[in-house]
Amino acid sequence: MTTTALISLNSPYPFWQLSDRHAEELRSAFPGVRFRFAEEREAPVEIRTADVYLGWSFDTKWLNAPTRLRWTATPSAGVDHWPIAALRTAGVMLTRGYGYHGRPMAEHAIGLLLGFSRGLFDSSRLQTRVVWWKDHLADRFFDLYGQTLTIVGCGSVGVRLAEVAQAFGMHVIGVRRSPPRSEPGGIEWVPADRVREVLPRSRAIVNLLPATDETREFFDEKTFKACEPGAVFINLGRSSTVDHDALLAALDSGRLAGAALDVQPHKPPALDDPLRHHPQIVLTPKSAVFSHAYMDQAVAFFRDNLRLFLAGQPLNGAVTPTLGGPHAPH
Amino acid sequence: MTTTALISLNSPYPFWQLSDRHAEELRSAFPGVRFRFAEEREAPVEIRTADVYLGWSFDTKWLNAPTRLRWTATPSAGVDHWPIAALRTAGVMLTRGYGYHGRPMAEHAIGLLLGFSRGLFDSSRLQTRVVWWKDHLADRFFDLYGQTLTIVGCGSVGVRLAEVAQAFGMHVIGVRRSPPRSEPGGIEWVPADRVREVLPRSRAIVNLLPATDETREFFDEKTFKACEPGAVFINLGRSSTVDHDALLAALDSGRLAGAALDVQPHKPPALDDPLRHHPQIVLTPKSAVFSHAYMDQAVAFFRDNLRLFLAGQPLNGAVTPTLGGPHAPH
Repeated sequence: MTTTALISLNSPYPFWQLSDRHAEELRSAFPGVRFRFAEEREAPVEIRTADVYLGWSFDTKWLNAPTRLRWTATPSAGVDHWPIAALRTAGVMLTRGYGYHGRPMAEHAIGLLLGFSRGLFDSSRLQTRVVWWKDHLADRFFDLYGQTLTIVGCGSVGVRLAEVAQAFGMHVIGVRRSPPRSEPGGIEWVPADRVREVLPRSRAIVNLLPATDETREFFDEKTFKACEPGAVFINLGRSSTVDHDALLAALDSGRLAGAALDVQPHKPPALDDPLRHHPQIVLTPKSAVFSHAYMDQAVAFFRDNLRLFLAGQPLNGAVTPTLGGPHAPH
Repeated sequence: MTTTALISLNSPYPFWQLSDRHAEELRSAFPGVRFRFAEEREAPVEIRTADVYLGWSFDTKWLNAPTRLRWTATPSAGVDHWPIAALRTAGVMLTRGYGYHGRPMAEHAIGLLLGFSRGLFDSSRLQTRVVWWKDHLADRFFDLYGQTLTIVGCGSVGVRLAEVAQAFGMHVIGVRRSPPRSEPGGIEWVPADRVREVLPRSRAIVNLLPATDETREFFDEKTFKACEPGAVFINLGRSSTVDHDALLAALDSGRLAGAALDVQPHKPPALDDPLRHHPQIVLTPKSAVFSHAYMDQAVAFFRDNLRLFLAGQPLNGAVTPTLGGPHAPH
């Protein structure tokens, strides 16, 4: 029987949409597969005759009707909004993408870090208001060179970030539930339960933790109190992994010099949310993974996996029930 | 006769001051040299008995009295404020520092570039004012990966900047009056008189040109008109090399997406200077070269040169009258 692949990748942004070129590429790469490209509203019907589904999200209700679905895939790195347990019960595999989120996220993280370390955010705010703010910056800047960056939840995104941080002469500590035995890329690996031992020597902390029960408020009062005074905290992971009251307190006490949050507890935050108005916080609107190269790479990843699927081989990026932390770097 | 070295490095900032430790290092490295460490106001008297002078600036009047001065040195990369011709007439050598400005300046340039490319400056301004600005960023961001950075006045600072830009996957074009025959670090070299041929494919332009007659308003209306639409212009060189009216016009026409200026025609700019208030301009207060490692490296550079001087050998960083462009990378 012909394999049917339903692809529903709707987005307001062209760089997260499947283009006609991508559709054509898939059709010519897999002449034996029947591809259906559906709008969001068509997906609930189309899913009934699909063996494979590629999309940004999955509605648990779709499993209520009889289904021949065997594999669901998402280009996202995070799958906390997917019905992992229900899919497992239904015997449907779930895969997520990896290997292509790292480049834009590394650019985003380094940009935010340098924005604080070189006083660029302060400059852009002060330039319209004060005569000269050179002394202000001289008191606050720091060199990246020679400083330590700790990456919490250091999977493939973190390894890419480590590469560019090392190009600036930074020492990189990778924190992971289970550190790898090998040491790719000169990273100093530390298990997650020992993070507080390395925070006192970390001038920069980038959080990439996924949202799981285990990671809830991983960054709490105790963790922030362990940080090196003057450290910068950057969250490109999930907001549930941070106690934001503790974060505000760490900024107000001077423990942290700055914080950047690409994810916030409320999306969008209320206009009077203190996270918006703290002078040492920069918010970005979940834009860390913005990349014009995104869909080319996501389609290539899916293409490789579809080839494996058709050959009955194990898939890349398989989400397992024990998978709370980030997957291994590749 | 004993060589006397006068060192007068006053600065409001500790990282640009000679510390007691530095003084001690010099004394113990050169027991035969008489070191004089002078405040700015003492320099005019002390200079009369000095063979060697290390300082941030030099007053031409000091040459009016009889002098045994043979060599003046500055840690700065730029010497446009030094009386080059008068020193030459007096037979006094002048050297400037190199090799240690690159690290902080590369951090500064990449931070400014990412501030624009990732929409970080816009985010930090919009977060207090608009509900959600994700669409705004989605329309404007660009990936550094795969884009071209053109460094104009690409000497040792530019070569260091090229290294980190390449770590982000950028292609780097180095523009210099006379490009080197060898091709260090995978840079595509282009002579300065052909810069307009490469600007149409340069998403980012970093200007490191020194101030000379030859470089005056190198970036004029014609040059900006040659730029790739949406390019970002960053000036860490000298303000005299830029026609700022043409820069403002290039921003207003949409030719340039952003500009960052670490140097401005007036220091500080008037509070109503349009450069302060343009929404796509970020000003930094000549802080690109801020580095806590500065003086360690500047003293090490001077120490090496003093050793050469005492041995009667050619000095590093010698400023020659024909030297308009940046010196060769090392």
